[in-house]
Amino acid sequence: MHIAITGAAGFLGQRLVNQLLDRGELNGKALTRLTLIDQIEAPRPEAPGVEIDCLALDITSPGAFGPVLDAHPAVIYHLAAVVSSAAEADLDLGMAVNFDATRALLEGCRERGLSATRLVMASSVAAYGGDMPAQLDDMTALQPQNSYGTQKAMCELLINDYSRRGLVDGCVLRLPTIVIRPGRPNAAASSFASSILREPLNDEDAICPVPTELEMFVMSPGKVIEALVHAGEVDGASLGAFRAFMLPGITVSVGEMLETLREVAGDEAVARVRHEPDARITTIVSSWPARFDTAKARRLGFEGDSRFREIIEAFVDERQ
Amino acid sequence: MHIAITGAAGFLGQRLVNQLLDRGELNGKALTRLTLIDQIEAPRPEAPGVEIDCLALDITSPGAFGPVLDAHPAVIYHLAAVVSSAAEADLDLGMAVNFDATRALLEGCRERGLSATRLVMASSVAAYGGDMPAQLDDMTALQPQNSYGTQKAMCELLINDYSRRGLVDGCVLRLPTIVIRPGRPNAAASSFASSILREPLNDEDAICPVPTELEMFVMSPGKVIEALVHAGEVDGASLGAFRAFMLPGITVSVGEMLETLREVAGDEAVARVRHEPDARITTIVSSWPARFDTAKARRLGFEGDSRFREIIEAFVDERQ
Repeated sequence: MHIAITGAAGFLGQRLVNQLLDRGELNGKALTRLTLIDQIEAPRPEAPGVEIDCLALDITSPGAFGPVLDAHPAVIYHLAAVVSSAAEADLDLGMAVNFDATRALLEGCRERGLSATRLVMASSVAAYGGDMPAQLDDMTALQPQNSYGTQKAMCELLINDYSRRGLVDGCVLRLPTIVIRPGRPNAAASSFASSILREPLNDEDAICPVPTELEMFVMSPGKVIEALVHAGEVDGASLGAFRAFMLPGITVSVGEMLETLREVAGDEAVARVRHEPDARITTIVSSWPARFDTAKARRLGFEGDSRFREIIEAFVDERQ
Repeated sequence: MHIAITGAAGFLGQRLVNQLLDRGELNGKALTRLTLIDQIEAPRPEAPGVEIDCLALDITSPGAFGPVLDAHPAVIYHLAAVVSSAAEADLDLGMAVNFDATRALLEGCRERGLSATRLVMASSVAAYGGDMPAQLDDMTALQPQNSYGTQKAMCELLINDYSRRGLVDGCVLRLPTIVIRPGRPNAAASSFASSILREPLNDEDAICPVPTELEMFVMSPGKVIEALVHAGEVDGASLGAFRAFMLPGITVSVGEMLETLREVAGDEAVARVRHEPDARITTIVSSWPARFDTAKARRLGFEGDSRFREIIEAFVDERQ
């Protein structure tokens, strides 16, 4: 089985590559070839018996996907994206990478008759917005209040239509906020959600810019990777009338996150978190929905974290 | 005031032109210029004092909108579209006309700084689909089951994002099934809904291909035109977090439609309708939602027909 991954040099991409190589198979078929695509060449994993190509590609250039699609991959994980702050700062870049490149990928599959190729794309909680109900479900409208979410919502529609027409076999996962991300804080508005846990666990200080009452819808990196793998295997017919849906995150307030940190790592860890309210970040993050009935994902066998404590414990375990 | 209309040679386009010329103003500003755009040259109305350009344009050709936008129209009605059956038959044509041309229009407005230009687009009940609740509302997801609806839903997202970014001032109306359309039956699956009323009123026979229990969400041509005019005037800030919404149609079963025909035109009119069930048409039409809470449109002052009988009476009046 040949699997292609865009955004393969990113945090999720690298984890997904490792997970796929650890499993050695998808859908009962041995993994024989991996094509890793990113702007820069992705790190080449050790994997005897698996043919691995690491391609540094500008996916916005015409025909960029040609050589990859000519090899008829059975599964494509399309994770490459311009993230929310960058897409908001540069509309043309966001449209080119997030929308036009996805469309080119779909067209490339269509031209080559890759109707059985499973195309898995990562969408986002940022596709939601507007006058949302207290709890969202699988039929809540996407009314994104940012260009990134707009572009992802447009891709969802297009992938659904191409799948409905039998031109490709799409499956789009809307990802909750991923906690705990490894590494350093970044410019994402949600960066603090990892920081306030990761930094104290590393004996460093962190800043919490939002009220502790604020609720978020979160998922651990491990469960996101499990979901991506499952999305490569789930039967297309079972996906029903729409190919995109929200993954089962868990709803947790920032206060609960900090209390769980206290349970796992003690008072001194929590004392490392300084509360410095930031209205800009609070406005953005509190506009994201935090309560979902993710019946469709659960029916399809996608699983979330069971308790927030496990998310922290998994981070501690992986670090060791 | 300069108003541009795409699809100006169509049924709605021509009616809108006449309505705008009858009013002579929009938003309290005198109508001084009309640009009528269609594949073929639109009929040129008599209108002393109003500068009228009739342009035969292929809106999918690069730069097609340039000359129109260079004149900085205050309002653009974007009604041009490849209809549902044609968009289903030809994905490329549908994408080019329904999506890419709309994107080009948005980009043209952005390039010229037309942030105050009101862009009114017609979307459709066909943008809905999937596992819908018994009654839809303004936060029901668009999960279209046809390429036309997909393309319209993508345009809604893009117009909303361009409006949110202050690049244009968009307002998108999702139209119910329009009843009674004038003229002859066409290839649209909903064609019968006009036929079973129009033909008997014209002393002709008609075929009803669906069960009489089937419910539809309908609006008269007159109310659609009123809604388009109102969409040219409504304050952009009042449109809230999403620039697209369903118009207030009325829910009526085919049986009720025929009983109302009996009230207005007698038993002999209803006897002209032959019932010949057609599974294909029934499947398509019964997949369209028929019950909506259109709170947003009503709050914004958009009005529907009050009773189905008035729809028939208006048709009879107009014909005379």
